[in-house]
Amino acid sequence: MVTPWEVKGEVDYDKLIKEFGTSRINDELVEKISKKAGFMHLFLRRKLFFSHRDLDLILKDFDSGIPFFLYTGRGPSGRTHIGHLVPWIFTKYLQDTFNAKLYFQMTDDEKFLFRDELSLEKTENNSRENALDVIACGFDEKKTKIIYDVENIDFLYRIALKVAKKVTYSTSKAVFGFDNSTNIGLIFFPAVQAAPAFIENERGNDCNCLIPCAIDQDPYWRITRDVAPGLGYRKPGAIHSKFLPGLEGPKGKMSASEESSAIYTTDDEKTVKRKIGSAFTGGQATVEEQKKKGGDSDVCVVFQWLFYLFEEDDKKLEERKRKCKSGELMCGECKKDLNERVWKFLKAHQEKREKAREKLKDFEMK
Amino acid sequence: MVTPWEVKGEVDYDKLIKEFGTSRINDELVEKISKKAGFMHLFLRRKLFFSHRDLDLILKDFDSGIPFFLYTGRGPSGRTHIGHLVPWIFTKYLQDTFNAKLYFQMTDDEKFLFRDELSLEKTENNSRENALDVIACGFDEKKTKIIYDVENIDFLYRIALKVAKKVTYSTSKAVFGFDNSTNIGLIFFPAVQAAPAFIENERGNDCNCLIPCAIDQDPYWRITRDVAPGLGYRKPGAIHSKFLPGLEGPKGKMSASEESSAIYTTDDEKTVKRKIGSAFTGGQATVEEQKKKGGDSDVCVVFQWLFYLFEEDDKKLEERKRKCKSGELMCGECKKDLNERVWKFLKAHQEKREKAREKLKDFEMK
Repeated sequence: MVTPWEVKGEVDYDKLIKEFGTSRINDELVEKISKKAGFMHLFLRRKLFFSHRDLDLILKDFDSGIPFFLYTGRGPSGRTHIGHLVPWIFTKYLQDTFNAKLYFQMTDDEKFLFRDELSLEKTENNSRENALDVIACGFDEKKTKIIYDVENIDFLYRIALKVAKKVTYSTSKAVFGFDNSTNIGLIFFPAVQAAPAFIENERGNDCNCLIPCAIDQDPYWRITRDVAPGLGYRKPGAIHSKFLPGLEGPKGKMSASEESSAIYTTDDEKTVKRKIGSAFTGGQATVEEQKKKGGDSDVCVVFQWLFYLFEEDDKKLEERKRKCKSGELMCGECKKDLNERVWKFLKAHQEKREKAREKLKDFEMK
Repeated sequence: MVTPWEVKGEVDYDKLIKEFGTSRINDELVEKISKKAGFMHLFLRRKLFFSHRDLDLILKDFDSGIPFFLYTGRGPSGRTHIGHLVPWIFTKYLQDTFNAKLYFQMTDDEKFLFRDELSLEKTENNSRENALDVIACGFDEKKTKIIYDVENIDFLYRIALKVAKKVTYSTSKAVFGFDNSTNIGLIFFPAVQAAPAFIENERGNDCNCLIPCAIDQDPYWRITRDVAPGLGYRKPGAIHSKFLPGLEGPKGKMSASEESSAIYTTDDEKTVKRKIGSAFTGGQATVEEQKKKGGDSDVCVVFQWLFYLFEEDDKKLEERKRKCKSGELMCGECKKDLNERVWKFLKAHQEKREKAREKLKDFEMK
């Protein structure tokens, strides 16, 4: 089950492409982006980004002089974890490559409406804290604007109203699974999430919008795309990532609300070590058994993290897999390797995150 | 049938009090207000304002030092007509009497969402035009703020979100008759209409809110009152008016969208004369017949307009009724009398309306 609020069970990404009606990112598209960028991003090579809507058309338009801007976001329900950074890191790659403007939306309204225990003050505060993680990803401050829904509603509301007028409860119910117990704020919210996709068109700028995001956000873009033509806006395109699995198991996506499943960007060295130390692996019950039978890297979260984020070298990764399966490599060693890389990455991120405090005002939408 | 969007058929006001669960305005309350005001308003004497919620408690609080502010509004679907002025004129009386602050909400978002043919630009423009009629009613510019929903959403949204989180689709459906075909903007809107009732509490001011309005708006206040305690706000009270009947017949309420049924505040002398000339009366088919059988003032719109708005003298009104029933008075004469009074009122209103253009900025919420 994959909805914008919940991802449960093992995710069949091929099935999602069929069900959602999106397209697979083919080699031609990967080549086109990589050539323009000067290098192939690991997330493309390892197919962490695997699906899209109209990316081909948007790149064709780009070649013929119609630019695109990027739009992504975050539901600030709590602290940022490493899984959240995946689309942002890739968005930064796209910004650099295509010299693209970026609108980053913090949906503090949605999270307030969705979570009983969250106050508006708390979610608005989360927004500002999460924004530091966004800035730490290295976005161009001249081309990036962070939108806080609640703070910037004056500017989103006109577009959201136009969208809302075109979306019936019936459609919303079908797409998001709303029911009688859903609060009326959540029912309206898809119109607010659609709004940034139309900012530039609304201002009279004829350009496309490309939305890098995890695949679970796609239902929003289906509605957004459906209403676009009737409002005189261009349909936004999207580029979808898989989920980085949580540390507790390879199924579903990392959850910010399950403390031990996620590594937060503000975790300290000791916490990171502890969490990775108890990560789910494909290891056997005892060292003896593992030496005899070997491990199963296919279900191993540590291996998946290395695969998607922390081991760029295909040969080394292949060698690690072979050694695991043959029983030469123990889980402790992989965990140690992953821990070193995660902490190295996180330490650098945390430094940039602290520096971001000074820049926050420059990134915020006025 | 009485909903915030439609009033159809003959309205049984006693039944509405029972169905809506409101209270009748009794003599004690009329006396209390009149004593404080120094005179009894015609709308109280003739029971045009007939129902309330917690008016007794709010007046009691007022006596013990807890003030109240007034909140009313307008859905700017088009031009203002005389029926719209009824609650505003009475609100001005209450403002003067209780030295009360007033928030006046222009629900341009609602009307845009509700009417297919209305653009956002058109409804926002209607808001500004309708605001001139509000100001022309003579409100105290130091104590009155006009809120345009779209323009002032920055300031309403936080409260609306808190309200929306407490209202399920199920409740909304039951109260407003929403269904699968309702757009998601309209479903959210009751939260926006609730917001001004909580402005002062939200700012930490411990005071009551009293809402003068036509009875069809009561469903909004039911929801608003239900959520108030859970949000730490005071339940707003309300004081309800009947509908001024349209010129085409005594049933339902005057409709701004039926050109010939309403007299707009911007109609010229000739138009007013023409419209009143073809008003529905209780007259007979011919003069001869009327002289013989007499007219029926009970169903006569001209008589009702005189009763509620344009003939303060009880004795003269009684005499007019007697003469009508006995066949001494022809409809033409009543129409002529009404026309003179309406035009006198409207001419003065139009002068104040034009002067209001200069004051508009001072009345608008920043």
